[in-house]
Parts: sequence; structure tokens; C-alpha cells
Amino acid sequence: MTSSSTRQFRPLPVPSVTVGGYWGDWQDAVCDHTAAILLDRCVAARMLEQVNPDVPSPGIVIPIIHWLGTPQMFWDSDLGKSIETIAYSLYRKPNPELEARADAIIDMYEKLQDADGYLNSFFQRIKPEWKWTNLRDFHELYCAGHMIEGAVAYYQATGKRKFLDVMCRMADYCVKKFGRGPGQVRGYCGHEEIELALVRLARVTGNQAYMDLAKFFVDERGQAPNFFIEEAIAHNRDPKGVQKNTLEYNQSHLPVREQTKVVGHAVRAMYLYSAMADLATEYNDDSLTEALETLWADLTQKQMYITGGIGPAESNEGFTDYYDLPNDTAYAETCASVGLVFWASRMLGRGPKRVYADTMEQALYNGAITGLSTDGKTFFYDNPLESTGKHHRWTWHACPCCPPNIARLVTSLGSYIYAVADDEIAVHLYAQSEARVELANGAKFTLRQDTDYPWSGKIGIAVDPETTARFAVSLRIPGWARGAKLAVNGQPLDLAVDAGGYVRLEREWQKGDRLALDLPLEPRVLRANPQVRQDAGRVAIMRGPLVYCLEGADNGAGLNSILLQHGAGRVETAAIPDLRGAIAIDLPALREQANSWGADLYAEKAADTEATTARLVPYHLWDNREPGEMLVWLRER
Amino acid sequence: MTSSSTRQFRPLPVPSVTVGGYWGDWQDAVCDHTAAILLDRCVAARMLEQVNPDVPSPGIVIPIIHWLGTPQMFWDSDLGKSIETIAYSLYRKPNPELEARADAIIDMYEKLQDADGYLNSFFQRIKPEWKWTNLRDFHELYCAGHMIEGAVAYYQATGKRKFLDVMCRMADYCVKKFGRGPGQVRGYCGHEEIELALVRLARVTGNQAYMDLAKFFVDERGQAPNFFIEEAIAHNRDPKGVQKNTLEYNQSHLPVREQTKVVGHAVRAMYLYSAMADLATEYNDDSLTEALETLWADLTQKQMYITGGIGPAESNEGFTDYYDLPNDTAYAETCASVGLVFWASRMLGRGPKRVYADTMEQALYNGAITGLSTDGKTFFYDNPLESTGKHHRWTWHACPCCPPNIARLVTSLGSYIYAVADDEIAVHLYAQSEARVELANGAKFTLRQDTDYPWSGKIGIAVDPETTARFAVSLRIPGWARGAKLAVNGQPLDLAVDAGGYVRLEREWQKGDRLALDLPLEPRVLRANPQVRQDAGRVAIMRGPLVYCLEGADNGAGLNSILLQHGAGRVETAAIPDLRGAIAIDLPALREQANSWGADLYAEKAADTEATTARLVPYHLWDNREPGEMLVWLRER
Repeated sequence: MTSSSTRQFRPLPVPSVTVGGYWGDWQDAVCDHTAAILLDRCVAARMLEQVNPDVPSPGIVIPIIHWLGTPQMFWDSDLGKSIETIAYSLYRKPNPELEARADAIIDMYEKLQDADGYLNSFFQRIKPEWKWTNLRDFHELYCAGHMIEGAVAYYQATGKRKFLDVMCRMADYCVKKFGRGPGQVRGYCGHEEIELALVRLARVTGNQAYMDLAKFFVDERGQAPNFFIEEAIAHNRDPKGVQKNTLEYNQSHLPVREQTKVVGHAVRAMYLYSAMADLATEYNDDSLTEALETLWADLTQKQMYITGGIGPAESNEGFTDYYDLPNDTAYAETCASVGLVFWASRMLGRGPKRVYADTMEQALYNGAITGLSTDGKTFFYDNPLESTGKHHRWTWHACPCCPPNIARLVTSLGSYIYAVADDEIAVHLYAQSEARVELANGAKFTLRQDTDYPWSGKIGIAVDPETTARFAVSLRIPGWARGAKLAVNGQPLDLAVDAGGYVRLEREWQKGDRLALDLPLEPRVLRANPQVRQDAGRVAIMRGPLVYCLEGADNGAGLNSILLQHGAGRVETAAIPDLRGAIAIDLPALREQANSWGADLYAEKAADTEATTARLVPYHLWDNREPGEMLVWLRER
Repeated sequence: MTSSSTRQFRPLPVPSVTVGGYWGDWQDAVCDHTAAILLDRCVAARMLEQVNPDVPSPGIVIPIIHWLGTPQMFWDSDLGKSIETIAYSLYRKPNPELEARADAIIDMYEKLQDADGYLNSFFQRIKPEWKWTNLRDFHELYCAGHMIEGAVAYYQATGKRKFLDVMCRMADYCVKKFGRGPGQVRGYCGHEEIELALVRLARVTGNQAYMDLAKFFVDERGQAPNFFIEEAIAHNRDPKGVQKNTLEYNQSHLPVREQTKVVGHAVRAMYLYSAMADLATEYNDDSLTEALETLWADLTQKQMYITGGIGPAESNEGFTDYYDLPNDTAYAETCASVGLVFWASRMLGRGPKRVYADTMEQALYNGAITGLSTDGKTFFYDNPLESTGKHHRWTWHACPCCPPNIARLVTSLGSYIYAVADDEIAVHLYAQSEARVELANGAKFTLRQDTDYPWSGKIGIAVDPETTARFAVSLRIPGWARGAKLAVNGQPLDLAVDAGGYVRLEREWQKGDRLALDLPLEPRVLRANPQVRQDAGRVAIMRGPLVYCLEGADNGAGLNSILLQHGAGRVETAAIPDLRGAIAIDLPALREQANSWGADLYAEKAADTEATTARLVPYHLWDNREPGEMLVWLRER
């Protein structure tokens, strides 16, 4: 299914899309609470003492991150992501106080920056002697990447160039330092991130050197001799001494175009593949796209939770064996699903394909947003699909990567809904929103969705060009939507879904054109490939893009005693007021009785059962009410 | 169900019972291989360098045992258990070379012992300054306990008193050091063991001071103010700093008679309860028995795997929540099930009750012996009930507690089969064996079982008194044995099972009296209490005392794709030549087809199924053939 398309789709900039409805509520939560909380907690963690050249260095505050074996040395990344979040939030809700706090941090970084452009508060303030000694473990370029993303967003949001200029100087420094020329380092970062950040920086500045450096980092990765082994030997370290003892951990075991299996640390993998997808689009590089298509199938057909969660193991924060998807111990880091959204959205750069957009939506609604409480104040790091009632969102973490990651995704969501090519707009996600678009072919229009999606499947789309204009509107028809209907200006249309799973409407658009899309949201009963041992004999319920679960708040304790009975009664849906009006699903079920079982732990009998109604709620909203059990994969009779 | 019986049953000494058949094979494996392997690997681990005062001290060889946070400081216990194993093995198979090696180690300990009787190679040779500074964490009395058990066994096996005398001097030292008198320490060990060892020492020496010291340790445990808190404060340590931050970890949270819940480290708990049961018997202490009955129900009705494995969590090597029994991550340490056998056998000290003997048998055949390969050369530490094919027996371990523990249990098995009171012999286990008995009432007889148990349920029992004598023979009728039959001298007997689950035959026994017991071994289908979420919707197959499992060697990969179909065909049994003639069970089943499922990881369909025959083998024999998956709790249609 190699794409040889030369069409290049790029996301709409965040400021071009106003979001309301379901995602508007999430954005409000981040604007009103999360954005400031991120800064508050970064300050409480003593990050600013490390950054601010005017106060004494705090030294190493957290000596060991247990899964990494190094001190906490990547706080710049948390500040970068927090500033990025604040930037996006300022579009939606101007907030002079928050803006001033961000400006103050940017001022510190500007003051801290070395004359040659180098900037990393850990290596400048805490351990100068470690600078550039360990690209594999020390997150040095990773931090630069997140700072660049923050700088790009802050520039776009506020028009202020200071942070962008600071990070351009750091990028210029890197352009000099890394490369294949004499005296340059042929290395790359152990935690990918700088690559996709440089693409963003190149796009906003138009500086091709940044794009080429991104390409260099991606192309060099995994080439022989392996840079990380050479680097370790050069610094008298055991080349197998850390990082889970594998090159797979950071995807440097093979040149990226030869990689066929998704391995290692999940977030690292997603950020790498995101950059590869960006570069495939920018350079029309089919060799990258082919590798990515293989990796995509590997991930989504063998290694992904139904929630779009990825990376089942805590030990490497990443991938294990094919079809190994434990539910109660699922790591499925919030950041990894955020990264999957990044990757999927970038796979759409070479044209609309629902194989990517469907999974982007699945990861967004189930793997990623679950990481944030509805009030925007607490966070999941890992996202199990089963809980005995002890798993809850926390207020902060020694490695606080997930909170700003989900927050920046939420606040930039507009750019994931739409993407544009020269003469086309693709609608990848359905969400109450208004996009203000100007295509390269000159068409200028607004596209407005009116919908209560994901609770309702009815979507009204208003296309209002300033003047009549020819372009295409491509609408995703999700793979799960059987019996979808589309009308144009009230006239039903035969649904001509193309090979990519989109309906492409190319026409002369006029002010007042109206589309009506109806995606049926009947609850669906899904089973896993029989090779997923942990889901054997169990089903998951989905409705539209949402995975559902049983929660103790509705069903009491002992969720594994509940057996769904399909067809034994009516399937009802109901709005839940204390979950933002989310739609619950009520299903007929049996419940095994523990009371009548007796004292024996094991016995030659079946448990008594009693008829009941099982209430399912959207998985991503669990643990927002009273604490209790949770279960996604359910028994059935 | 409090026992106020004043009957005292004690095990027959190991030399009084010759074992053959099934357990004879295991004993041969230990005599021929394990016993020498234990010494070889203790030597390779550098233990003797620590013990031998004539060579330089090796210093701390293993700086940290990760779950404990201390160096490896309990090697004396491994040597003690190894010598105990060797002692028992010498009954069965004299081995001058092995005996000479044990003698040489005993000579080292004799030479090492301080003039005041103190003996512990770690604190004498490596860290004298730590001596008696940390009873909670440092295993000092625990080591003495295992050395005492080894000394008792070696004396009984060889008649040589040297090791016994050495350990009596250490026990005398402890009698002086610990107690409620002026200048004495009112403490006890963080890892129970010394208590049950002192009971054994008292029984073999007749020295009541040892018995009373055991009682002191048990009675003091958990009294307020808590000794371990006081001890930590006295040595300027954080009283909550180690040992999983709980007093429950070592069962010192409450006085033992007030404990109602089985908590903490599983082996510690079992050794404590074993000592409590011994003391309940020796002192006819109903208050201890009552506490033990409560703890017994707590363990066996809420916290025990069907294998008799206990302690599901690796984090504390112990207990977690009621009904929390994960199968694939089950810790279920071999030592813990060995400890459960110890406890259960001692609960029989106040009279035959199958509630204890049935569980003793269950833990013996499924939780404990699984820890040893059939060739006696490799060992399981943890015993999951499900494996994807990566769990295998190892040759050694930084904490090599399990190998000698299962080895000493196997070689002393005769003493678990039978127990005697003044005028009675109880047959708790069925096994090819001959017991030579002299009761306190003067009756002198041999009791011989001829049986292929556990493969067959037919047991012939020959009772041959030297002269006609009156005494009782109590035969356990296992709770699972429906339709058991008994004949005396060819005459069928109405099976009058008493409240404890035994048939008690009190009569004038004559030479040539013959009993024929027939315990039906029909495969049984068991389910777990619905509160065990991990077993929901699944069944386990047992036959007699044996838990069965699916293994990859017979059924290929993907064991969770197999659904048993009760009643869809014949249940067959067959002997497996490459597993010592073990009986396999063949059951009709369906198998979900992964081949025809397609590429989707999740889909709205059920997998195709195909009829098949599932072969089940005894769980304790798994991983003795080619490596592969294993599964105890099976799906059913």
C-alpha cells in the first residue's frame, strides 16, 4: 500500500481552528487549570532554580530516575512542553498572568544561553563536565527539541520572537556541531524528539538547514558502526551498561529504513516515526514511507491495546512480545498514546487514509485523554485496562512528562482535526469546530462542524468560501461506521468511499453549502485476535471511537463476576450528568454471586448467577467519580 | 472447631520410614544428584570461604539482596539446610564421600565457634561490628535455626554428635542471652525459624530449656512496645526504614494469639505458624490452636492458589489482598509451599484432621515438589500457574533458599506420611512406604503401604505387629475422594469417616492383617470463588491430589485458545513414558484458530474453532520436557 503521492498535507496551524463542544470542554479545563498547574508544579519541583542564572544552582535534586539509572536531567523538556501548552491556551483564553510567567522563564533561558548558542540548564548549571558526553542517556538534544516546540508555539501564539530566536541560535549551534563534515559529530539523541522539533522549526522559519539536520539525525540512526557503542567506548563506559542493554531500546539497532518491528521504549519509537513521517512528506521519500507502513502494521496489528495504548511493560516503558497485552499491569503510558497521535497525524501527510486517522482517533479518545482528569488537575502516567480500585490519577511525578504532553495535545487539537494540501482540505476528526482556511490555490473559506460528537454521530458541516472556489473536501468515513449517510445541501449522496476510506467532494463550493454526515454509533462488540491470551474469551464494547468499561461507581465491586448477555434484552443508552453528559450503555448481564458460594476457595460447582444490568461508561472518563474497580475486557455468557 | 484434645501426635523420625515408588524416585534424584549439587554450588558461591577460619575472609560477596536491602548474610542457613538434606539422604543411600564433605564443614563450624558458644560465620568473619545489632533484618537467629535443624538431622542420620553439640552450645548461649530476666534481650528474629528448630532440638535432646526458649520467642512476638521499633531507635535507625515498612512483613504487628489474618512474607509466616503449632501440641495450648485455626481458614479460604502456592507478590515475597491470585505473575515461592507443608503437618499434632492433611498433600504435590526438576538438578524459585514459555528452572540463585528446602522435604518425606500418638498411628499420606513403629503403649509393628499412588488410588496396607497388640490405625479419606472403599482382610467395611475426615480402626492387630483402600481418582473440574478475578470463567482440572495443566510440549502454542468441552466426548487417561509414567488426562476441546482470524487485532467477530483433544499433565511435572507455554486455569466452552 505504498503511497507514491506527491501531495503534501500539512496540519492547519493551531490559531486557524476554534474548537468547541466536547473538545472545547477539555480545552477549557486545560486553560483554566492545567496550564497554571504545570508551571506551579515545575516551580515546586525546583526546576526554575536550575534554569535561573541569578539564583544558586540547586544541584541534583532527584539523584536517580529508577527506570533510567540517571539523575533527573530533562527538566528543560518539561518546561518546554509547559510553555507550549501555555502558548496554545493563550489562543483560546488570553491570560496575561500566565503569559507573564512564561515570559519570565523565557527571559531566564535567554540569559542562560551561552554565546555560541548552547542551551541546556542541567549541563550549564549542574554538570558542565557531562556536556555532550552521553547522547544516548542524557536527553541533551531531546530537551532542545521540546524547547524548540515550545518556542515555535509561543511565537505563533503571541507573536513574540524572543524564545524562537533563542532556540534558533541553539539549532544553529546544532547545525554546526552535528553532521558528516570534518570535526562534526555523526551522532543523534538516545531519546528521539529533536528531529520532529526541527521539522516544525524549519516549517515556521523556512530555514532548510533545520529540515536537513532533522533528516541527518534520522538517516544516521542505526548506521554501522553504531554511534552509541562508539560513544560509550570513547568515554570508557560499558557499551552495554545502561538503557536496558539493548540498542532496540532507542531504535538504533538498524538503519531506520531497515526497521520492520516496533521495539523498545514506546515514546522514543513514536517520536522517531513521527519525524520519519514528516520527512517522508517533506522530501516525498517513499523509502521512509514504506518502512513506516511496515512499522504501522506491526504496531496496530500485533502490539496495540484496543485503547490505542502502547508499550505494555513498565520495565522498558515499552514493547515486549507480539500479542502480549496484559490488562491489569498495562503500562500504556499516556505519553506513548500522545506520541501515537503524533505519528498517525503525520502519516496523513501523504494523503487521507483512514487506517491512520481511525487509529489516531482511537488513541486520542482512549489512550491519551484518559491521562487527564475532567477537571484538568490530575494525571495518569500508566493506563491499565483493568483495576482493582487502587489506580488513581496523581498530582505530580518524579518524571512529569505526561501532564504537559496531554495538555499540549488537547490545546492544539484543532491542528489534528484538519489538514490541507494545495487544493484540498481533509477532515480527519469530527468535532465541534470552525476552521479558517486559505489554500495554496487561492481558495479562502471557513469550514464549520456542528456536532455533539462523540456522543452523537450527526455532524453538520458548513463550507463558506469568501467567493465561489474549486477545491476538495475529504471526509473520513470511519472503518467502524456501517451505514453512514451523507447529504449535500439536503440531497442524499451515494457514499462513494475511496480506497483510503474518505469521501472526496471536489466541486465549486459556494457560500451556504451544507453537508450532513450521519455516522451510526451503535454499540459494537469486539473480540481480540486469539493470540492475545489476556483477552481470551472476553469482549470489549465500543461506540463510535470510544472504548467502554465497567466501573465500580456504577456496578459495585467484583466486575469480573459480570457476564454480558447479548440479545437477552434491550441495549439502552443514557446520558450521565456527573460525567459531562457522557453517554453510558446499559447491557443485560448475569452476575455470579459470591455470597452464596460458601467458604471453599475452590469447588466442583458453578457459582449461582442473577440477572442484572451492566452499565458501561467511556473508558477515558473512568476514575473521575468515586474510586473503585474498572474493567475493559468483559466476560460474556 | 477448637481442639481441646490432649492427644499429642508427633511425626515418625525419618529413619523409621523407608519410602519407595513415586516418592522413592524423588528421593533417589536428591540422593544421586541434588545433595551433592547443593554442596557444589554452596562452594562455588564462596560460602566455605566465609565459614572456614583457616582461609582469608572473602568479605561481602553479594552486596545487596534486592528485596531485602541487605548483603547476602544468611549463607549459614543454606549450609544448614544442605547438611540436613545430606543427613536424610544418607539413610537412603550411604555415601561416604558426601558424608566426609559434610564432616569437613562441621569441623570448620566447630573451629569457628566462639568460646561462649556464639556461631554465625557472617558476623564472626565479615561484620563482627554488626553482631546482634539488627535482629529484624540480619537473619542471625534464623541462621542458627537452620543450623540446628541440620545438626539434629545429622545426629539422627549418622549418630555423630559433633554438630549437635556445637549447636547445643549455640542454643545454650541463646538461652542465656534471650529472655525476660535482668540483662537479657526481650527480642526475637525478623525471620522466624529458630522457634521450630528449638522445638526439634528439645525433642531430640530432651532439654526443656530449648522448648521454653522457643515458647519465649513466640510469646514475645508482637508484644508492645514492639521490639523491632525499640531496636531500631536504639541503633539510630529509622524504625520504618526497611523490611517493606511494615511490621506485618515479619508478623510482629500483634501478639501471635491476636493475629487473625495471614500477612507479610510468606515463608516467615509459615515458619512462625509451624512453631506455634508445635508449641500448641507440646504445651496443649488451646489459645495457640485457636489462633492457628483462624489463620488457617484465612489462608486456605482466601489467599491460597489451587496448587497450594502462597504469597502471590514478588514485592514482599508474600501476601497481598484477599482473593488476589494472579496466575502469570504468581510468586508462590517454593519455600513458602514447603513451609505450608511444615505448618499443615504440625497442625496434625493435636489429632488427625483432613482439613490439614488434604492441604498438606495439595501443597506437597503441587506447590512444593514443582520446585525440583525430575532429575534433581534444577530449581524453581517462583511458581506461576501460567507461562508464555519463558519460565524455567535455574541452576542457582543469589538467594538459594529453595533448592535445599525442597530437597530436605523430599528426603524426609517419610516423617510426613505417618504420625503417632501413644496408642495410635495416623496415615496422613498415601505413598509406597514401610514404617517401623513402636508406640508408647508398647505396641511394636511395621505398617507397609503398597501403592502406585498418586497415579493409582488403590492402596494396600499391611499391618504386622510383632505380637498381637491393641492400637488404632487412622486413615485419611481425602475430601475429594467420593466413593472411597475400604476392606479389612478382604471384608468390605462401611466407611465410617469421623468428624476429622479419617477412618479410625481401633482393634487387636495381628500379624498378617491387610487393609485395601480404594480412592477413586476421577478427574475433577474445579472453579474458584467468584471473588478470584484472575480465575473468572475458568476451570482447573484435578485428579486425586494433583493439579493438572496444559503444556506446550503436548498442545503446541496458544494455550489460551483452547476451550474444554465437558461431556462432548470421552475423558481418557494415559501414562506418559517421558514423565516417569505420570498419568495424563485427555479431554475433548475446541481450539480457536488464529490462522483464519486475519490481520485485525480487534474485530466484531468470533474466532473460528476446530475440535481437538487437550492433553493435560500434572502441574508439578511441567517444564521437564521441551520448553513451552503452560496453563493451569483453562477456558471452557
